[in-house]
Amino acid sequence: MNNPPDAQFMYEAIRLSEENVASGQGGPFGAVVVKEGKIIARGVNSVTRLQDPTAHAEVMAIREACSVLQTFQLTGCDVYSSCEPCPMCLGAIYWARPDALYFANSKEDAAAIQFDDQFIYEELARPLNERKLFTRQMLREEALEAFQKWSVSTAKIEY
Amino acid sequence: MNNPPDAQFMYEAIRLSEENVASGQGGPFGAVVVKEGKIIARGVNSVTRLQDPTAHAEVMAIREACSVLQTFQLTGCDVYSSCEPCPMCLGAIYWARPDALYFANSKEDAAAIQFDDQFIYEELARPLNERKLFTRQMLREEALEAFQKWSVSTAKIEY
Repeated sequence: MNNPPDAQFMYEAIRLSEENVASGQGGPFGAVVVKEGKIIARGVNSVTRLQDPTAHAEVMAIREACSVLQTFQLTGCDVYSSCEPCPMCLGAIYWARPDALYFANSKEDAAAIQFDDQFIYEELARPLNERKLFTRQMLREEALEAFQKWSVSTAKIEY
Repeated sequence: MNNPPDAQFMYEAIRLSEENVASGQGGPFGAVVVKEGKIIARGVNSVTRLQDPTAHAEVMAIREACSVLQTFQLTGCDVYSSCEPCPMCLGAIYWARPDALYFANSKEDAAAIQFDDQFIYEELARPLNERKLFTRQMLREEALEAFQKWSVSTAKIEY
């Protein structure tokens, strides 16, 4: 059973997104992670400030939440983002495994202000050889060995 | 015009993936970023070691490469990954905008050793209300304001 969405948390994500524009720190995106009715982490888009293309609001908030909780899983947490996550952030959210995701602006809204979310969604849906990013598979046989070693390893921490 | 793939770089990505299993540091994944015929950054899966669900090999390598080059764009670079990137990493690669992506193991190979890549690809392709992750939009009108402020901001750094 999920918690019902709580508007106060989305208002905070939106406030962060506006603050980030006003301060000139980065793109118009904010996110918070909520656990047991409290915000445990906040993130804002920090791509240009940190020179890090992965520093989207959701990734920043997830990394902070995991640091706070000392875990790599956000079970029992909800993510509130001021915008529908791009594929990178949505992937990060799936790996973190929160209970729910709430967002405000849509990916079409992001595309309308020249963010590439929609383009990346379309690229992921294309076969590899039809993508704009030149993509090729090579040396699969050689790489499989690490996977086989992982399969039989007794020291691994699964996730 | 892309550089032709160079096996030595993929062998290094594969070596990193095997080393990561052998050392018990994380999952069987390695990646390198190459610029002008040289490896400028390396990454290995560090999710459990760093308690960070975003610390996949490609994300680690991209962040390191951007740090080395002091930029948030990997123009002129190639990414070599020991496995086909998951949606999070593929998104990160698109945002970093390298010239080419090479990979060895496929996402089906990853699924065969219980990594969720394939599941996340399937989820992204589903409508929001059919996803296993509970996902809802809310407060769009309120969030649009930050996008409008971004559109007219003269202080922004576009990316």
